[in-house]
Amino acid sequence: MALIEARTLKGFRDYLPETMMPRERLMETARQVYRSYGFAPIDTPALEYEEILTGKGGEESDKQLYRFEDHGGRKVALRFDLTIPLARFMAQYHNELGLPFKRYHIGPVWRGENTQRGRYREFVQCDFDTIGVESITADIEAVLVVHDLFRALGFEKFQIRVNNRKLLNGLLESLGLAGNSAAILRVLDKLPKMGSGKVFEELVESLRIQGDLAKEVIGIVAITGSNADILSQLAPLARGENGQRGLAELGEMLRCVEAAGVPAGRVQLDPSIARGLDYYTGTILETFLGDLPAIGSVCSGGRYDNLAQVYSKERMPGIGASLGLDRLLAAMEELGMLEKRRTPVGVLLAFFDAQHLPDYLRLAARLRAAGIGVEFYPEPKKLGAQLKYADKRGFKLALILGTDEWKAGRCQLKDLASGTSRDLALEDGRGALSPELLAALTG
Amino acid sequence: MALIEARTLKGFRDYLPETMMPRERLMETARQVYRSYGFAPIDTPALEYEEILTGKGGEESDKQLYRFEDHGGRKVALRFDLTIPLARFMAQYHNELGLPFKRYHIGPVWRGENTQRGRYREFVQCDFDTIGVESITADIEAVLVVHDLFRALGFEKFQIRVNNRKLLNGLLESLGLAGNSAAILRVLDKLPKMGSGKVFEELVESLRIQGDLAKEVIGIVAITGSNADILSQLAPLARGENGQRGLAELGEMLRCVEAAGVPAGRVQLDPSIARGLDYYTGTILETFLGDLPAIGSVCSGGRYDNLAQVYSKERMPGIGASLGLDRLLAAMEELGMLEKRRTPVGVLLAFFDAQHLPDYLRLAARLRAAGIGVEFYPEPKKLGAQLKYADKRGFKLALILGTDEWKAGRCQLKDLASGTSRDLALEDGRGALSPELLAALTG
Repeated sequence: MALIEARTLKGFRDYLPETMMPRERLMETARQVYRSYGFAPIDTPALEYEEILTGKGGEESDKQLYRFEDHGGRKVALRFDLTIPLARFMAQYHNELGLPFKRYHIGPVWRGENTQRGRYREFVQCDFDTIGVESITADIEAVLVVHDLFRALGFEKFQIRVNNRKLLNGLLESLGLAGNSAAILRVLDKLPKMGSGKVFEELVESLRIQGDLAKEVIGIVAITGSNADILSQLAPLARGENGQRGLAELGEMLRCVEAAGVPAGRVQLDPSIARGLDYYTGTILETFLGDLPAIGSVCSGGRYDNLAQVYSKERMPGIGASLGLDRLLAAMEELGMLEKRRTPVGVLLAFFDAQHLPDYLRLAARLRAAGIGVEFYPEPKKLGAQLKYADKRGFKLALILGTDEWKAGRCQLKDLASGTSRDLALEDGRGALSPELLAALTG
Repeated sequence: MALIEARTLKGFRDYLPETMMPRERLMETARQVYRSYGFAPIDTPALEYEEILTGKGGEESDKQLYRFEDHGGRKVALRFDLTIPLARFMAQYHNELGLPFKRYHIGPVWRGENTQRGRYREFVQCDFDTIGVESITADIEAVLVVHDLFRALGFEKFQIRVNNRKLLNGLLESLGLAGNSAAILRVLDKLPKMGSGKVFEELVESLRIQGDLAKEVIGIVAITGSNADILSQLAPLARGENGQRGLAELGEMLRCVEAAGVPAGRVQLDPSIARGLDYYTGTILETFLGDLPAIGSVCSGGRYDNLAQVYSKERMPGIGASLGLDRLLAAMEELGMLEKRRTPVGVLLAFFDAQHLPDYLRLAARLRAAGIGVEFYPEPKKLGAQLKYADKRGFKLALILGTDEWKAGRCQLKDLASGTSRDLALEDGRGALSPELLAALTG
């Protein structure tokens, strides 16, 4: 029979152990941080009714949807984010769950998008949201979660850039541009990628905004400086209730994150952060890595007024953010932040004397019971072959017992980096594993 | 706009926090046990080329496949297990990975099967495999992994039933039925479900086996007793090389798992375990819960001769098993083994005095830094509403500070089960959190 070519689909990836181990660590870290704030996990199906997923999506996500008919003739599709499934979920269970409700959700999503620019068609999102809360407290907490998360992942240099849609809308109102604000914000969102010249052109030509107004808009969102500077420069420009409220919320947020111990500079007010999505209504945030700003935001989110409006009459305001796990993993790989190992344990127990198989297995079981992970080489082979394997996998120690060692009740412990060996007693006088062995294996 | 009905597809489920929290614990436990033996994680895409997935699948899995054409006109399908993706993966990377290779893989799979009998169309599998090893050592280790896993999950009463295809084939050879062994084993696999009468009928009528031979086959696989009894009864029946080798492997396995500390009775030789899949060639194993045997095997697997033969010329023998996570979760729920909580943390920090928002946030941050997870109620509300929320979610403690407490540097810690409160100092004399508070929150 002819062989079938082993290959993955374009835009999809396999994760080998040396990448999957840090990927699991990332997910575990995200879970721990989310949980420490009281966010609880949920899960939803990968497949949903197509009408559920397209109910609120923009044209772009519609085009990217993997959709088909299932065995029962239902029109179904693979989820392309975790927000729409959350909205559907909340519409279904909000009475049972009660509000406020804080959840996290870690899972794969699928988008049949162009695979240029290192984009993949399957990637894991790590979302957290607080639902049913109007108070800015939840927004402040969201920023603190993102901060704790990046610290826990080992980052020192990163910046959470915050802005507020109320402020942006207030600024546009002051300029008489309130009626067109959604379209203008979508254009402004492209400022970092396109530059101010192109954005000016698009505002004037596509949106028919007067040149001097367009210039003024761009000038406002380009204001930089310390948080206090920016706030004081924007205060006189953001007249009206919306703008003042947005400024007040940003001021409260910046004061509170400082009180909660976030070092200066980590949370930066940035009037140019607009986020393309129409449904944001207050706080918006993006996160950039100090050593790799070019990859763009690795954790983004914002406040919305009505999460589940397509599915429910219940108004559910909230705030959340999404960590792009696979993009972050790629960034950490590029930054050399991932330890390259191919084994989850440090110790290889070599296998020589087939007669002693039960003894090897018993020793391995006792080590595991003592909390020491150990891989037992599964065939009695020459030491050279077993040590070569240990090297390739990145084991730190090889525990070696041949016929003589079993007879003498001793073992050789070889440090694979230095090549040095120690001769150690296997047991203490009373049948327990010797303290010197346990210390050498855990040290 | 009319509302879209919020619903999930038939055969698919949402996981709310009280189910998702134990589900995450199950996965974490599986990861820890697999890792402790040196199994390393991998991941593969949910979507594969259809020809990859149908290359080896039987007719049944073909029918169940979710398949469609993607945006590029490729015929694609959702994986229905983690074994075929592993075979494809090994064909692609075996040179890079080196053999032996031990991997685990935890992920969802999809089957458009009949949803009767509590079966779902999306469920998580937790597989582990050792690839590139002929030695029975890997088979013994697989049984030990399953044993450790169920112990770590909190089970006391469970049984791993083992058998060996070499033995079964040897027994059939002795009866002159070797030519038809694959078909006979598929029929014998239905013994627990159909009973011996129906199996006899099928052997005689569908497979045209003589009645006395069929009776003899059923009599052999129905042998029960202690492991030693069964081995000694089968020894004279399993003439020929195959049968003797199978018996020797089983004997070695039973001796070694005992040496490794598995209590008597947990691993039981069962000649009737056949497994339906043709590709098993040696050890086969199934796992049954003592308190819920009717749900069938919750962890099954076996040895195969050539994992990736459809995709590669490299012969890759191995052994592995698959834990049906969602079926096990349902069983544990039925057995009352899941703690019903809706919050991942024990402490709710109540919110009263909006003026002190920065202080609350700082306190919460300090508690988290001390390793104490704490949820901060996101709005200043009446105590009653906040305590009702705490009750509904299952918090154990409420930490309460109003204007007076902030002034006095004290707090109230309310035990929500007993209703009793304690008045505690917030800090020690030197600006650190007071030892009495930390002790009360962690105790």
